[in-house]
Amino acid sequence: MLSVREQAERTSRAYRDFLRSGSTRLKNDILAEIAAGLEGGAGAVLEANRQDIDAAKTSGLSPAMIDRLALDEKSVRGMAAACREIASFADPVGRVDGMTVRPQGFRVGRMAVPIGVIGIVYEARPNVTIEAAALCLKAGNGTVLRGGTAAYRSNAALVRIVRDAVAAKGADPDLVSYIESTDRDAVNELVRQDAFIHLIIPRGGESLIRSVTEHSRIPVLKHYKGVCHVYVHERADLDMAASITVNAKVQRPAVCNAAEKLLVDRAVAPVFLPRIIPLLRERGVEIRGCERTRAIVPEGVKPAAEADWTEEYLGLILAVKVVDGLDEAVRHINGHSSAHTDAIVTADVRAADRFVRETDSASVMVNASTRLADGGVYGLGAEIGISTDRLHARGPMGLAELTTYKWVVLGDGHLRE
Amino acid sequence: MLSVREQAERTSRAYRDFLRSGSTRLKNDILAEIAAGLEGGAGAVLEANRQDIDAAKTSGLSPAMIDRLALDEKSVRGMAAACREIASFADPVGRVDGMTVRPQGFRVGRMAVPIGVIGIVYEARPNVTIEAAALCLKAGNGTVLRGGTAAYRSNAALVRIVRDAVAAKGADPDLVSYIESTDRDAVNELVRQDAFIHLIIPRGGESLIRSVTEHSRIPVLKHYKGVCHVYVHERADLDMAASITVNAKVQRPAVCNAAEKLLVDRAVAPVFLPRIIPLLRERGVEIRGCERTRAIVPEGVKPAAEADWTEEYLGLILAVKVVDGLDEAVRHINGHSSAHTDAIVTADVRAADRFVRETDSASVMVNASTRLADGGVYGLGAEIGISTDRLHARGPMGLAELTTYKWVVLGDGHLRE
Repeated sequence: MLSVREQAERTSRAYRDFLRSGSTRLKNDILAEIAAGLEGGAGAVLEANRQDIDAAKTSGLSPAMIDRLALDEKSVRGMAAACREIASFADPVGRVDGMTVRPQGFRVGRMAVPIGVIGIVYEARPNVTIEAAALCLKAGNGTVLRGGTAAYRSNAALVRIVRDAVAAKGADPDLVSYIESTDRDAVNELVRQDAFIHLIIPRGGESLIRSVTEHSRIPVLKHYKGVCHVYVHERADLDMAASITVNAKVQRPAVCNAAEKLLVDRAVAPVFLPRIIPLLRERGVEIRGCERTRAIVPEGVKPAAEADWTEEYLGLILAVKVVDGLDEAVRHINGHSSAHTDAIVTADVRAADRFVRETDSASVMVNASTRLADGGVYGLGAEIGISTDRLHARGPMGLAELTTYKWVVLGDGHLRE
Repeated sequence: MLSVREQAERTSRAYRDFLRSGSTRLKNDILAEIAAGLEGGAGAVLEANRQDIDAAKTSGLSPAMIDRLALDEKSVRGMAAACREIASFADPVGRVDGMTVRPQGFRVGRMAVPIGVIGIVYEARPNVTIEAAALCLKAGNGTVLRGGTAAYRSNAALVRIVRDAVAAKGADPDLVSYIESTDRDAVNELVRQDAFIHLIIPRGGESLIRSVTEHSRIPVLKHYKGVCHVYVHERADLDMAASITVNAKVQRPAVCNAAEKLLVDRAVAPVFLPRIIPLLRERGVEIRGCERTRAIVPEGVKPAAEADWTEEYLGLILAVKVVDGLDEAVRHINGHSSAHTDAIVTADVRAADRFVRETDSASVMVNASTRLADGGVYGLGAEIGISTDRLHARGPMGLAELTTYKWVVLGDGHLRE
């Protein structure tokens, strides 16, 4: 078995070759070949997955974890369809932005180019293997994958299909590599290969992300938790506020862009809270309120603890707080949200404008549900995740966010005077 | 004295307040006040600087280091002028790019916003204190500065002027703070304040950058060395190639965008090398050549060692290599350059195009001197440095590169279906 360093070095070399050979046509041909390989090789993938699931059951993994691990014919067909869809998107590489002529007469602009080699560290879901490899490839990057131990047979089978497809089209299969070692140290080793890897994207729970960030010598783009707020301003349309709150909380409560907190201006709290709280409770939402909330709606509202203002429930719980106005709402959000997505409901244009400018989050919304924070909904095409970091990419990340740029200078013998 | 953590926390708080209050007018007023403060307070700054220089002489600092440390009336006036110039630039914050209407009817776009709190770790030059603080402030960021120990009295005097100016205009002076501890551990402490600081920019030598990168839990934007190449293609205009080579090497050899290596296609080497080598030697450049170079010009060319292909001389030395053609040139550059700036000289449009696409460097030039890689020359206005990293900002960094973005969604009750 190759060492982590050797694998990273090989992928780095394959990436450099691909800089030369990786035309749009070749990339799309490889993606089509992966799709065909998945359809033709579904049997082997499902057999490997069955072995992973047997082992997971034996080792007592939770049913929820096993559920995330499980593949079937339909999910493999879904992966193939995703590859074909990614092939259909415009190539994010090569576009030149802002080419200008400088006073000296030369031209300068910024060209979109691959980031380089991207390390993806993830947990049980095997479909991440295909999605991440396909998106990184479309953007011209090399990829070093390291999935969860419980899925290593499934992942190995999937990566074999990817590498065979890369080789079948004449490129170096090391463009995509998979760290097969199930040793936890392999991840720590991976995140120190700063000579060969340019970006690490961890996808998984808080402990995975913390551990990667702690050990990494390579820049890390975190996909962290979503503690999202809906703030109902005193000049909100209360019907709209109710429908946005319900949608943001219950439409899909287990995901990072679901609302976890509701802030309500004290001027409208006596009218709005007695309406929204029963509506949410009917849908099975547990309400945890501040003192002022409980004074207005005493029934069925549990007292909120300090930790409720920062916790990501990922379930049918909502913490509710009455605030004095926009200033307190913004201060509270900037102090307690995870800076993922926060929304105001208001009919007042100045309040909307101030909320947009002053709220320090990756997505800031006016009169819209936090659930809209999504690469597909924003029009990015594919989405590799939602960054909660501030640099390079913030919020939903699409193919363009898997590229960087270089400066291109076109002269005619221009010198520095 | 406040702890590093307390200082970072205070700057973080001041940054958040400034998100609300930091209008373009306020930022420009503060910059004008800093300029006035520098002019009015030059005496105190120069007195502090005199003490730093006395101490540096006593402790046996090298004359070159003392030279970089020294300030005079003119350099203080230069800092004031820089602040006024930065005030005159357009505000990089608030611009919304690519606002589009999605099929559901809401609008989404990306708004330029401050990065947050930026930590600047630098060495002896006290003028970095003012430049960095002024640029970060113009982009709405908080700044935590830590300069070289030898300059701490000068830096403290300069930061006092900045903080007084911030306070005089009604903002929180903690928006700019300076770590006064001369303990080396203070830097390690600083780069672990990921709860309060969002980006670290180290400016200095290789050992400083390595140490910061090794210890940092915060993203680091490196300003690393420049091992820049001029590649003379077989279809180059040789007059142009000669003038670009001379300019790139000798116009200012001590800076990162000066050329350190010359690659010459073997087809033109017998003509070009006997011309360019005497030209460079006349200007005092020491030539270190590969075997093929020395076979063509035996006289006055030292043999190049392996280390010569990767070393940044920052002086009048040039390593010269004969290559077989474009493929070898690109492979050599991608394997040996620091990915800062590399140039081709050619009259062939396909060679130029391939060089631009395949060379994996921050600035890639056709028929232009590497010395043009500069924020001012590219039209960025001010420049905080030249990033050799690949993420967030690559190559010359101006005010726009001191911002990030947030997604702004403007709806009218839009929900996720």
